[in-house]
Amino acid sequence: MSASTLTPEYVLTTAKTIAGHNVVTPTIANEALSRRTGADVFLKLENLQHTGAFKARGAIAKLLTLDDAQRKAGVIAMSAGNHAQGVAFHAARLKIRATIVMPKGTPFMKIRKTRDYGATVLLEGDTLHDAAVFAQAMAKEKGLTFVHPYNDEAVIAGQGSLAVEMVEAVPDLDVIVIPVGGGGLIAGCALAIKKLKPSIDVVGVEPELYPSMTNALQGRNRPCTGSTIAEGIAVREVGAKTIQIVREMTRTIVTVSETGIERGIAMLATQAKTVSEGAGAAALAALLEHRDMFENRRVGLVISGGNIDARMMSSVLMRDLVRQGQVLTLNIEMPDKPGQLQAVSAVCAEEGANVLEVAHSRFAMDLSASAARLGITIETRDEDHAHQVIDRLKASGFNVAVKDPTAD
Amino acid sequence: MSASTLTPEYVLTTAKTIAGHNVVTPTIANEALSRRTGADVFLKLENLQHTGAFKARGAIAKLLTLDDAQRKAGVIAMSAGNHAQGVAFHAARLKIRATIVMPKGTPFMKIRKTRDYGATVLLEGDTLHDAAVFAQAMAKEKGLTFVHPYNDEAVIAGQGSLAVEMVEAVPDLDVIVIPVGGGGLIAGCALAIKKLKPSIDVVGVEPELYPSMTNALQGRNRPCTGSTIAEGIAVREVGAKTIQIVREMTRTIVTVSETGIERGIAMLATQAKTVSEGAGAAALAALLEHRDMFENRRVGLVISGGNIDARMMSSVLMRDLVRQGQVLTLNIEMPDKPGQLQAVSAVCAEEGANVLEVAHSRFAMDLSASAARLGITIETRDEDHAHQVIDRLKASGFNVAVKDPTAD
Repeated sequence: MSASTLTPEYVLTTAKTIAGHNVVTPTIANEALSRRTGADVFLKLENLQHTGAFKARGAIAKLLTLDDAQRKAGVIAMSAGNHAQGVAFHAARLKIRATIVMPKGTPFMKIRKTRDYGATVLLEGDTLHDAAVFAQAMAKEKGLTFVHPYNDEAVIAGQGSLAVEMVEAVPDLDVIVIPVGGGGLIAGCALAIKKLKPSIDVVGVEPELYPSMTNALQGRNRPCTGSTIAEGIAVREVGAKTIQIVREMTRTIVTVSETGIERGIAMLATQAKTVSEGAGAAALAALLEHRDMFENRRVGLVISGGNIDARMMSSVLMRDLVRQGQVLTLNIEMPDKPGQLQAVSAVCAEEGANVLEVAHSRFAMDLSASAARLGITIETRDEDHAHQVIDRLKASGFNVAVKDPTAD
Repeated sequence: MSASTLTPEYVLTTAKTIAGHNVVTPTIANEALSRRTGADVFLKLENLQHTGAFKARGAIAKLLTLDDAQRKAGVIAMSAGNHAQGVAFHAARLKIRATIVMPKGTPFMKIRKTRDYGATVLLEGDTLHDAAVFAQAMAKEKGLTFVHPYNDEAVIAGQGSLAVEMVEAVPDLDVIVIPVGGGGLIAGCALAIKKLKPSIDVVGVEPELYPSMTNALQGRNRPCTGSTIAEGIAVREVGAKTIQIVREMTRTIVTVSETGIERGIAMLATQAKTVSEGAGAAALAALLEHRDMFENRRVGLVISGGNIDARMMSSVLMRDLVRQGQVLTLNIEMPDKPGQLQAVSAVCAEEGANVLEVAHSRFAMDLSASAARLGITIETRDEDHAHQVIDRLKASGFNVAVKDPTAD
């Protein structure tokens, strides 16, 4: 299929073809987030999609284009993440053999999840790039169909079915915010919207550590590197096909910070009661960090996936409490004699601060040999309450310092 | 209104009256939970309701029955939880003054959430019972309408609107599982189902620490006490009106353990990407702990609310990893000499186990003075992997014991 066939009409036809194979995920108003952001917030809960992410859409779209011989030969894809699971899930449903290539060192849990869907997982190459080269070579050698995660017309069109559902559910949106990795989701969605409701703005979001689409649009070459919590959209090179569509149809790509993404994950959990992976929270991060752009508008945020590790989720929730000043560690110098811990805990109890953790240190060289430092981690109602507890401790004669939560 | 007017027809009429005031929450199939439980699982995501719980339904139903004079006078309710927020939220929308009575000692966060919705919060009485007595007396004295959390026809009918939506979304369910506290939700839903689709079984779920509905049905008097994570359904006395309906319409009430509820919260987060409070996860706990009852059936689980503290959520996720054997602490006895920690961490590294925490203890009296105990907390892929790591450590000459996760 030539690039010129990748039209809005093709996306709408594809959406019809794949209907019934995926979950029509809900698009729902969220009053709590609207109140907090000054926008009218709607969430497209694509984390409730099969395999927990939008990738299932593109995967089925591609698989349904195969003829009998291609189906019989099987498919191959390279991915350590959601694309792997999307392809494995739908291939199993259609009884097509799927091979997924992942780079060596891929965490075992990701391998297992993909195997659980019935795919054969091969660990090849030291990087994603090497794994992709291997997969493409194997596709050629064995006559398998290679399913690219984004640089493929059918895949792009499949992802676009998400926007079709959003526009149907909430026709009067002003803007839709879409996370951008390789660009397949935003390209497909932009095409669908162009046809269905061209008045809707399409805004893309990238992690500031991986501004690959912005680079491509602006002909710049800022580094795409570093450890991001949004690993699903940590892409170094966007697709040739996606960049073309994005350039034509999308006015704005914004970047968001790691802190913003973490804050987004935590707010989605506490305010919207939904579990999002880093990439899935990028759209909310954009709303939080570029508020002016969205104020008083009807904003649809695409929560593109929910595949976050339980330990990571647990940690993000606690880190957010620390960031909000509700959980903090106080370093308190005290003479190394009985009754000191009692005195400190009495203040905490009277003030209604909850003690979570206590640690003693006697070896710090900035203390005299007869002194000790108590590190006490407490939970307070909010920052004001925290200050109140600290003031009371100081008034009781303790030397108190708040531990920098970024140190450790 | 007399009890005889609390009919299936009244519930359906109420559902129509309140339509548009609440979110029509999604009922969606969940493939991951279905695979794990052997049932066809559908989730009614009522945690996505306004205020994060079904209580908003009953609240608006009651408020819409008020005449002008009653609206002008205002309403009063007693609740430290979701009912408080439901009443406060809808009263503010209708510009009705709301007073919420909470017992003294109610956590500040719950007070603030209710105040944020614009209600006046009064802290009165040492127990829920005392607070209720105060609220009813104040209602009489000031001419306010008392909004009971469950023993009220309009409230019960409002909660029933949830089942109307479920049956419309998935007409061919075999059974709906509903958490039971005072019984308002199950009573309203059972009435609606009786009329719309009497073939659907209605199963209620109580925490085993608070079997108040089972007590009432069986004329027993088992204790209702203890600390439960499902505090939203930790009710000592069900309603006179609700018990009557439940007795007539519901065949089965099951109880679930605290562990089952915690497991339910964690599975909803990891498999269904949704945030549930304890009461909200009770239905999944019932499916997990009474599997035979649901096997091969089309089961609708009511996820009734998502108002769980971020710290509690964080802790439940970590506790679940510990329970699944994926996070465990090994106590390792070692001579107090250099190189020991290095040797242990080398084994962990080679086996791909992630070290989360390290603690040294030199004071344990069961050790000789020249020995130390290392407590090392590691993350493994699964129980098999954990055993493999332990065997390798033993083979390297270390004396290893797995710390009992329930100790501490």
